[in-house]
Amino acid sequence: MAKVKKQPRPKAQTPKGFRDYFGAEVTQRSEMLRAIAGVYHHYGFEALESAAVETVEALGKFLPDVDRPNEGVFAWQESEDDGNGDWMALRYDLTAPLARVYAQHRNVLPTPYRRYAMGPVWRNEKPGPGRFRQFYQCDADTVGTASMAADAEICAMLSDTLETVGIPRGDYLVRVNNRKVLNGVLEVMGLGADDAKRDDVLRTIDKFDKVGEAGVRELLTKGRLDASGAYIDGVGLSDDQAAPVLAFLTSKAAEAAGTIANLRAAVGDSAVGQEGIAELEQIGELLTAGGYGKDRIEIDPSVVRGLGYYTGPVFEAELTFEILDEKGRKRQFGSVAGGGRYDGLVKRFTGQEVPAVGVSIGVDRLLAALHAKGRLTAEAAGPVVVTVMDRARMADYQAMVAELRNAGIRAEVYLGNPKNFGNQLKYADKRNSPVAVIEGGDEKAGGVVQIKDLILGARIAESATLEEWKERPSQFEVPRTELVAKVREILDGQG
Amino acid sequence: MAKVKKQPRPKAQTPKGFRDYFGAEVTQRSEMLRAIAGVYHHYGFEALESAAVETVEALGKFLPDVDRPNEGVFAWQESEDDGNGDWMALRYDLTAPLARVYAQHRNVLPTPYRRYAMGPVWRNEKPGPGRFRQFYQCDADTVGTASMAADAEICAMLSDTLETVGIPRGDYLVRVNNRKVLNGVLEVMGLGADDAKRDDVLRTIDKFDKVGEAGVRELLTKGRLDASGAYIDGVGLSDDQAAPVLAFLTSKAAEAAGTIANLRAAVGDSAVGQEGIAELEQIGELLTAGGYGKDRIEIDPSVVRGLGYYTGPVFEAELTFEILDEKGRKRQFGSVAGGGRYDGLVKRFTGQEVPAVGVSIGVDRLLAALHAKGRLTAEAAGPVVVTVMDRARMADYQAMVAELRNAGIRAEVYLGNPKNFGNQLKYADKRNSPVAVIEGGDEKAGGVVQIKDLILGARIAESATLEEWKERPSQFEVPRTELVAKVREILDGQG
Repeated sequence: MAKVKKQPRPKAQTPKGFRDYFGAEVTQRSEMLRAIAGVYHHYGFEALESAAVETVEALGKFLPDVDRPNEGVFAWQESEDDGNGDWMALRYDLTAPLARVYAQHRNVLPTPYRRYAMGPVWRNEKPGPGRFRQFYQCDADTVGTASMAADAEICAMLSDTLETVGIPRGDYLVRVNNRKVLNGVLEVMGLGADDAKRDDVLRTIDKFDKVGEAGVRELLTKGRLDASGAYIDGVGLSDDQAAPVLAFLTSKAAEAAGTIANLRAAVGDSAVGQEGIAELEQIGELLTAGGYGKDRIEIDPSVVRGLGYYTGPVFEAELTFEILDEKGRKRQFGSVAGGGRYDGLVKRFTGQEVPAVGVSIGVDRLLAALHAKGRLTAEAAGPVVVTVMDRARMADYQAMVAELRNAGIRAEVYLGNPKNFGNQLKYADKRNSPVAVIEGGDEKAGGVVQIKDLILGARIAESATLEEWKERPSQFEVPRTELVAKVREILDGQG
Repeated sequence: MAKVKKQPRPKAQTPKGFRDYFGAEVTQRSEMLRAIAGVYHHYGFEALESAAVETVEALGKFLPDVDRPNEGVFAWQESEDDGNGDWMALRYDLTAPLARVYAQHRNVLPTPYRRYAMGPVWRNEKPGPGRFRQFYQCDADTVGTASMAADAEICAMLSDTLETVGIPRGDYLVRVNNRKVLNGVLEVMGLGADDAKRDDVLRTIDKFDKVGEAGVRELLTKGRLDASGAYIDGVGLSDDQAAPVLAFLTSKAAEAAGTIANLRAAVGDSAVGQEGIAELEQIGELLTAGGYGKDRIEIDPSVVRGLGYYTGPVFEAELTFEILDEKGRKRQFGSVAGGGRYDGLVKRFTGQEVPAVGVSIGVDRLLAALHAKGRLTAEAAGPVVVTVMDRARMADYQAMVAELRNAGIRAEVYLGNPKNFGNQLKYADKRNSPVAVIEGGDEKAGGVVQIKDLILGARIAESATLEEWKERPSQFEVPRTELVAKVREILDGQG
């Protein structure tokens, strides 16, 4: 008989650009999502969970060509048998699905509709260090109102949220700007909505943080030699044309009133610019009335936010403390959340403009920030491990574990091959267990158990002198009836 | 100039087979997931979250042909630019990713590895009523041990979990069986591993619940006229051959010892059958020692579980209470969780057999069960709504909302167009708000606010006589300084 050709074994590998999360990585994220949801809910926002899958048509922006949708999303075509040959894709954010949901259900949803949503989103992009193709977002949006009270509320909520998850006041700042002010500046410069140079100017403004005032002036006019020695072409504006941009970018003053006055000067008599400034003033007044001062939220003209769909206020939450980057250099941690007003997304579906404003928190970045500040530890405490000295008495060990669990103590019995006791202790170590319980034949006969304080044991092994070791034994023999009480005592002592 | 052809508007529609979840549907599910995770964690299981995406190769079972992978999964081919042309797919369960993760990380993971995982899974199947293409699973598995203590532990944990999420003892039963016993029965019948009739027999056994002993006897032998009058061909066994199957299926006795004795008779001298019975006995002993009696967990030979990969014990949690189905007929609610031992899944990757056992809870079905029993209500309480009588005093209203929130009361200000006050009350109604707060010009001048008990108001409007209405007013005027206290009092009274 001919030998059947064997299938090669599949590779056990996380797909490129994705990753697995273990233990505390998972639980810390769920606790953070829960805390954020709590604040959103407290503000009157309602939960919404749409599916991971949308039609490419509904997601917009990405349109199918003959072969497959443009890059950016993970997409596939439904077979004609099951579906109708539609192109489907994984959502790339939580805003596009919200627009679809609101358009679809708007007759039964309250108006305005405050909703929050959290979950993974997917990007079909080249992965890089720390950049994954699946990551979590945590959004809150108010759909159906043009009131600046909605924008102010979201800024206040963002501030409350950051403090709730463990970023204290002083370690963050919510910075607010308005796209209309920027449009006013462009108008004053004589760059209309269709002017090709408009995008170049916007891109240049975004570099203000990096290259400063002088750098932006060069980039807007004749060009600039960058740090690497390469010559960057300028936008080609005259010095006069560039002046409003520079006035705008440097308009931040010590107090909001000063910033507003500077912005007024920068936009001159542009109607849209003045409108944007009035909106910023309204937001400022509402936040001041709510007790949110400039230690938490401030107007900052350098906030641009890349997304093209923003139409009014934009905001960004920045962590202001310094961390060391991978090369050991100090740098500010930077942005962890952002959002703004977008009035056109629902219109794609309904034809009617529906004003909306929202914020998106980058949960994974926030977690990284808490780790960087030492406010979260990588490893959580493991369970108490009841070791197995006599395989035939597994029921005895299970009974111990049940007693511990019923007393609210996380506990498990060792389920591996019990022959080698050293392996059991190695296992407890790998699990980060605080306590091991041992009951051999002698202990059973004597009605006692051995309880090992693994944290103290490790500390003694590392550093203690013989005297200290004698004074503070890390293993105790106690009556079987006192098992739970003694384990509890040790756990309490470990704090 | 030629008119530019307008793109048609996208349809605002949930993709076929998917759905949107709103408000309490979302929060009740997250609370349930959290409660289940709590029990799993307490038992020593560690969280794992892998991505939604795996290579089709790693998922197994579904292999790519020239065009696209077989049905069952949502799959797409990576472009050669970004990736390496691999076929990718959304996971269809949480067990296949676990096998991949364990094979990949086995050198750093503890052995045995107890892990839990929860999240959506996707099936590319024809959707039906109540059957969606994305749904939640909540799994716990122990990888790397052949000990029956692992199987017993998972049964006990399943029982604890059901009680924790609100299914009281008596309303559920965890039923345990063993595939090896079934294999022993087939061996006694002379049906070897390669016998074509084997699958027919298994399918017939699965119908025992529906057609009973006599029905199974007919189906195993000459065939049977079903309820609709159609003739179902039989498997074609002789009466003697069919006897062991019937002995097996009817072997359940009042006590476990009786069931075990009956099973011994059914498998005769089949070695694998006897091994399976010994395993069931071990599980039974461990559970009895742990205090899990037959009111919670019992041996039941009629449990088969469809999946081909189970190799030993299998179990199923069934809700035993009756509900009314969509046609008003009484029926048992049925299975909400199941699992078993599978020793071959990791081997696909590593070539080495790695014993494993796990359970999967169908979270959406459990939620449906709690709704059917009236233990969850569809609507949760909405926020207190502060209405807007004077648009210019938005800051005043925001301050009220902030006071309420700081006192721990969920509250929001009305953000729609405030012109029509009736719309504001309609909005509060739609939000299921318990209380509305009103402060017009007169109230402001008098230093008071109006507080409306909307729950009481609705009840009065429905049923009260004029006298009752006068005695129990649903609207109160209180000093502005007593806003929080009065709202709290009303909320407490609403219970």
